[in-house]
Amino acid sequence: MTDIRTMSERALVLLIERKYKELRELLSEMEPVDIAALTSELPRDIIPLIFRLLPKELAADAFVEMDADLQETLIQAFSDLELKEVLQQLFLDDTVDIIEEMPANVVKRILKNSDPSMRQDINEVLNYPKDSAGSVMTNEYVDLRLKMTVEDAFKRIKRVAIDRETIYTCYVTDQDRILLGVVTAKTLMLSEPDDIIEDIMETNVISSLTTDAKEDCADKISKYDLLAIPIVDNENRLVGIVTFDDAIDVIKEATEDDFAKMAAITPSENTYFRTSVLSHTKNRVFWLLLLMLSGIVTGAIIAKFENAIAAIPALVTFIPMLMDTSGNSGTQASTMVIRGMAMEEIHLRDFIRVWWKEIRIALCIGATLGLVNTARILLQYHAAPESIYFALTTSITMVAVICIAKSFGVILPMLAKKLRLDPAVVASPVLTTICDICTVAIYFALITVFFKL
Amino acid sequence: MTDIRTMSERALVLLIERKYKELRELLSEMEPVDIAALTSELPRDIIPLIFRLLPKELAADAFVEMDADLQETLIQAFSDLELKEVLQQLFLDDTVDIIEEMPANVVKRILKNSDPSMRQDINEVLNYPKDSAGSVMTNEYVDLRLKMTVEDAFKRIKRVAIDRETIYTCYVTDQDRILLGVVTAKTLMLSEPDDIIEDIMETNVISSLTTDAKEDCADKISKYDLLAIPIVDNENRLVGIVTFDDAIDVIKEATEDDFAKMAAITPSENTYFRTSVLSHTKNRVFWLLLLMLSGIVTGAIIAKFENAIAAIPALVTFIPMLMDTSGNSGTQASTMVIRGMAMEEIHLRDFIRVWWKEIRIALCIGATLGLVNTARILLQYHAAPESIYFALTTSITMVAVICIAKSFGVILPMLAKKLRLDPAVVASPVLTTICDICTVAIYFALITVFFKL
Repeated sequence: MTDIRTMSERALVLLIERKYKELRELLSEMEPVDIAALTSELPRDIIPLIFRLLPKELAADAFVEMDADLQETLIQAFSDLELKEVLQQLFLDDTVDIIEEMPANVVKRILKNSDPSMRQDINEVLNYPKDSAGSVMTNEYVDLRLKMTVEDAFKRIKRVAIDRETIYTCYVTDQDRILLGVVTAKTLMLSEPDDIIEDIMETNVISSLTTDAKEDCADKISKYDLLAIPIVDNENRLVGIVTFDDAIDVIKEATEDDFAKMAAITPSENTYFRTSVLSHTKNRVFWLLLLMLSGIVTGAIIAKFENAIAAIPALVTFIPMLMDTSGNSGTQASTMVIRGMAMEEIHLRDFIRVWWKEIRIALCIGATLGLVNTARILLQYHAAPESIYFALTTSITMVAVICIAKSFGVILPMLAKKLRLDPAVVASPVLTTICDICTVAIYFALITVFFKL
Repeated sequence: MTDIRTMSERALVLLIERKYKELRELLSEMEPVDIAALTSELPRDIIPLIFRLLPKELAADAFVEMDADLQETLIQAFSDLELKEVLQQLFLDDTVDIIEEMPANVVKRILKNSDPSMRQDINEVLNYPKDSAGSVMTNEYVDLRLKMTVEDAFKRIKRVAIDRETIYTCYVTDQDRILLGVVTAKTLMLSEPDDIIEDIMETNVISSLTTDAKEDCADKISKYDLLAIPIVDNENRLVGIVTFDDAIDVIKEATEDDFAKMAAITPSENTYFRTSVLSHTKNRVFWLLLLMLSGIVTGAIIAKFENAIAAIPALVTFIPMLMDTSGNSGTQASTMVIRGMAMEEIHLRDFIRVWWKEIRIALCIGATLGLVNTARILLQYHAAPESIYFALTTSITMVAVICIAKSFGVILPMLAKKLRLDPAVVASPVLTTICDICTVAIYFALITVFFKL
């Protein structure tokens, strides 16, 4: 980070001193993603200037790495010719990514300046359902034929490599584009020049359908350690590939969504800063309303015991502690289960095993917290006779609600998964509600018994 | 998943019918990770039998993908010769991974059956600090020399490829192993046979130090879309590489740790099932004790207003709702900020910008919740004169605590980062405590004013 900062300062100095040649040299040595980071620190007006200094290929690579805001600024500043040149350098999946972020007038300009075959490809990818494998794929792959020799293959790779996103996995197809097999560059390099592709290709191909969820497609890449996965249609015709770097992005995006859901936020399409205040509000307020409702129900239960509270107001002082403990115990269990299921470590058939584990954990935690709680109440009230009842009711409540919270922390996410709902979305508000209600219900039930109210 | 299930059943049938030849054929067509998943479903005793049916290389690859439990079972069942054969097939980083999970007696057997140079390499990697790039690297890379031709390079690759984790990025070193540059297989394939490596290599190499954090190393791989990153020592000597598939694992592990921290759990080294009940308890109970303490402080504040509660017990019924709302509002903001910082979208210098955004969001949310709350209280109490005071105190408290909660949701993680503490660990318990305390303090302060108690 400091490195980029220094570079950014050096670039600014060179800019001010108008030493464009040195600036061009400095930039040419940088990675595209670092140039993108640098431009985001500079005033908007000079970014087109910087961009024009870059060698064409680097310029296009840096453009892909920029925030949508900057990309829009640049496209607005481009002449039609410049835009055309940049678009020619881009891979299909990157172009589609950019188009999806741009306002309609910019999209129109992009499509106008793409050549007809590219335009057709863009429209095709845009037509796949959102979040499908088809919507993130690119069509820049190397295809080979069954009867080619290894030498032919190398010649073909050499000819087309410059426009392909990966050349390390090549796809063997017939004249109808039916996917017959894959050959890795490693296999090619280890084979003899006159070996025939048909004999050396791997026919047991792991692929995804265009309509598969993009997360499933990314998970396959990660599970089988693939560099790229072929995307086929229902007739097993090869229509594109998804590469490992795009899979990492899909996995990261899904993870961010899960973090949002766990914090009771509807995941946003956009980054934090690009999401407006109103959209942020919309993504959060529904869940808070739901949780407010939960608080109202809990309050209604407390209201039933107003007489008890009027008689012994000190009883109320334990409620926050009990509610905090039960809510957090439940979240601990549900998070472990939700993540365990996402990582495919915990399966639905493990239900009893997980629940039994959580119950034992709950008893250990309950015993510890119960003892600490008893000790502190007895100390605080100098072991007055009344305080023994306080200690007993709160400690028993605590053990009970920790067991209940941990149980529902297991049950709710697994039930959600069973019902094909999103465990992360369902678990959080429902779990809080159940924990809160159980806490006050058990606590006041015990109070009624112990204090004979 | 169903596919593996069916295969698993077919394998079992073939096993029972002792059709080992068909079984071997079935297994040979499967991916290593799927064979590992299949064995985890089968009775322990027959796993060595299955393992012995597999072709050697596939057997070793499947072994790497298995759970530590299964690996241990297999190693116990292996003869020394078998163990030696499997170890010879493994890459260094996988061997180290396995060793780190095994009990001492198994480790001893593994080291005894490794050849001396392998044993030395293992010990070297084991000596790097835990969580360092050195601890996850492997030394199976292709190294080239400056003066080699492309033809020489291809010959060398062909000779050594079988033992190398990747051949798509080759590293150019001198006789002292100093890293001079990298050449990708793509560059080699696009060059002429008599081109000299020195002329075609990339000298601007992105590398990591052995002592760098493994997360930083993985982030570099993801940021620069690398297939592998070279790991060098302080003298820029090449000591190993980390490949993209290992980087994905490191990123996933770090993400799981963040999920645990957000749920107030100390991250575990092991998977859910391999962590004992006592370890789970230990990882969770400290945070619950801390949050219990927070509850006690909140309770102490409520205790100060026992007279008010005795006079109007209904006041208490609003506490759960207010506490839930403030806690959740705070978590929403802190999660957005923590993840934004982890994704490098939000930087410390953005503090004012983020805070101002959250305050506006808080006001929008506060207004919505306040209105809903006022409406429901007036409805519930049929707009009795007292209920107007209830509605006012709770709604004003709500708007105030949402603003405070969102503010601290921004301040705490950013402060933690500034102090080089882990935002995810610091934010959660401290934030809950602050939200709880502010809620009851503001609520009762308003009550004292409105109800003149």
